[in-house]
Amino acid sequence: MPDADAPLIDTLAIVGLGLIGSSIARGARQYGLARRIVAIDRDPGVLERVRALGLAETATAEIATGVAEADLVILCVPVGAAGAVAEAMGPALKPGAIVSDVGSVKASVVAAVAPHLPEGVAFVPAHPVAGTEYSGPDAGFSTLFSGRWCILTPPEGADSEATARVQAFWEGLGAIVESMTPEHHDLVLAITSHVPHLIAYNIVGTAADLEAVTQSEVIKFSAGGFRDFTRIAASDPTMWRDVFLTNKDAVLEMLGRFNEDLAALARAIRWGDGDALHELFTRTRAIRKGIVAMGQETAEADFGRARPVAAPEKAPPAA
Amino acid sequence: MPDADAPLIDTLAIVGLGLIGSSIARGARQYGLARRIVAIDRDPGVLERVRALGLAETATAEIATGVAEADLVILCVPVGAAGAVAEAMGPALKPGAIVSDVGSVKASVVAAVAPHLPEGVAFVPAHPVAGTEYSGPDAGFSTLFSGRWCILTPPEGADSEATARVQAFWEGLGAIVESMTPEHHDLVLAITSHVPHLIAYNIVGTAADLEAVTQSEVIKFSAGGFRDFTRIAASDPTMWRDVFLTNKDAVLEMLGRFNEDLAALARAIRWGDGDALHELFTRTRAIRKGIVAMGQETAEADFGRARPVAAPEKAPPAA
Repeated sequence: MPDADAPLIDTLAIVGLGLIGSSIARGARQYGLARRIVAIDRDPGVLERVRALGLAETATAEIATGVAEADLVILCVPVGAAGAVAEAMGPALKPGAIVSDVGSVKASVVAAVAPHLPEGVAFVPAHPVAGTEYSGPDAGFSTLFSGRWCILTPPEGADSEATARVQAFWEGLGAIVESMTPEHHDLVLAITSHVPHLIAYNIVGTAADLEAVTQSEVIKFSAGGFRDFTRIAASDPTMWRDVFLTNKDAVLEMLGRFNEDLAALARAIRWGDGDALHELFTRTRAIRKGIVAMGQETAEADFGRARPVAAPEKAPPAA
Repeated sequence: MPDADAPLIDTLAIVGLGLIGSSIARGARQYGLARRIVAIDRDPGVLERVRALGLAETATAEIATGVAEADLVILCVPVGAAGAVAEAMGPALKPGAIVSDVGSVKASVVAAVAPHLPEGVAFVPAHPVAGTEYSGPDAGFSTLFSGRWCILTPPEGADSEATARVQAFWEGLGAIVESMTPEHHDLVLAITSHVPHLIAYNIVGTAADLEAVTQSEVIKFSAGGFRDFTRIAASDPTMWRDVFLTNKDAVLEMLGRFNEDLAALARAIRWGDGDALHELFTRTRAIRKGIVAMGQETAEADFGRARPVAAPEKAPPAA
């Protein structure tokens, strides 16, 4: 029977201390969710920053020793690396340990990780839908997940107690938790995140390659809309390469629909069908209102001014 | 010989008091750029707000009487309406008056407006590259143009004194002025503003039409990137319909290049060419750095938190 005042997790191991991993470490510390944090990263430079920032009790590149005493291990590596990491740590995991992740793609991560986990270790995949365009241990902050959604995709017959603890952990970080199948997750994120990133990366690339318009003109006059795409297109290249390679089918399916609609729009422009354009441009306003109403965005007009980071809308739970 | 302390413009007439027109009125007032402001709008509701907000000395729906004494007339109507407005006011303009506009498209506006202007009236087309996703007289603010670019497209053999006054007016509002041909302007804005808006409107429409993913899921999980597109897709439908109809050729040309690049990207995903994806995703970061360095955007991480409107980076000039 654990002490009622004891933290939710005794030893928390975080593998990969980038924007997300370091934000989890900061939040777990600030909100008293773990007694001890072990930071695992293969990059010596990252480990050095983790020690300098005091993000964990232990910082090591040795994954097997790092996870040996962990009650909860969270993989915060690019989804393409999840399988190799699971294979390396699998044998060292203690019975009763829970393994989770933060990958933006779920079906391929489940397929890559599950086979490497021993009997008696529960796997509860998770995806916190939050982030910024910055990367690395210095980019994280404890309130990143506050008021944001975290999607759990527990496999059939998953350990319900393990699932409940992972849910409690994310709620402790201020997130709102929802569960769905890995396949549905991958479809939802393909349209709400993956395809938007793909077309943002694409238009910035197109603009960079023009001859008739100089790069300096593109930069100067970016306030007309292009600016917002460049922010999204500044996201971590390795993370996003892996997202597109591992969620290929859903991304190509959603991209196909995007292209069909864009072709119809181009046709309306070519033939001067103003009513079709006006109808779409009016319809799209409703979704925006919904997003603002849901608190996933502020109604504040955005015109590229300074944006100080505000306090979380949600108070951290008492430890 | 005008009094040295006299404002730059004696009587300023603004036709169309939306986001841009009302911001010009507020800025001209705050920075002492005009002795008298005449607000002209055909919408009685807008005129009522103009009077309530005290944006002008005179507010009228009568365009001919409204422009009769104007030294500078600025058309702030959707580009599709510029020709009709010019036709209605042309005969009433006084000799020596200057006509300008704020349209996001220039070649078609020049073609539509110029023929209706009498001898002795100078036409200096302008486009302030600034805005928010909001519309109407209540959405404007005096610092909207501060530190933003304003593009002038003076026709061949334009009155250089008139051009200089329009430049001084925009600099008085805090803008940085650059001149180019209408045709080049339309090409530059097609890639930096028009096509970005088109694909933002398009993906929001695609997301709204899915069966496999509900609208509520799209809204909930929008923080993954989609959210930023909905902001752009909340812009004024009539203004944007007109932009696409009047800048058709440049938009379709840039959209064609966007589509070619997107097809290559889709192929790289289908065939698992991670290197091609990583190369593009790395290249796009440079343009972002340039935009932040140019002060057209803040480096502050954007994760959908409150963004108070900051003070202009540039102090208003003394009147």
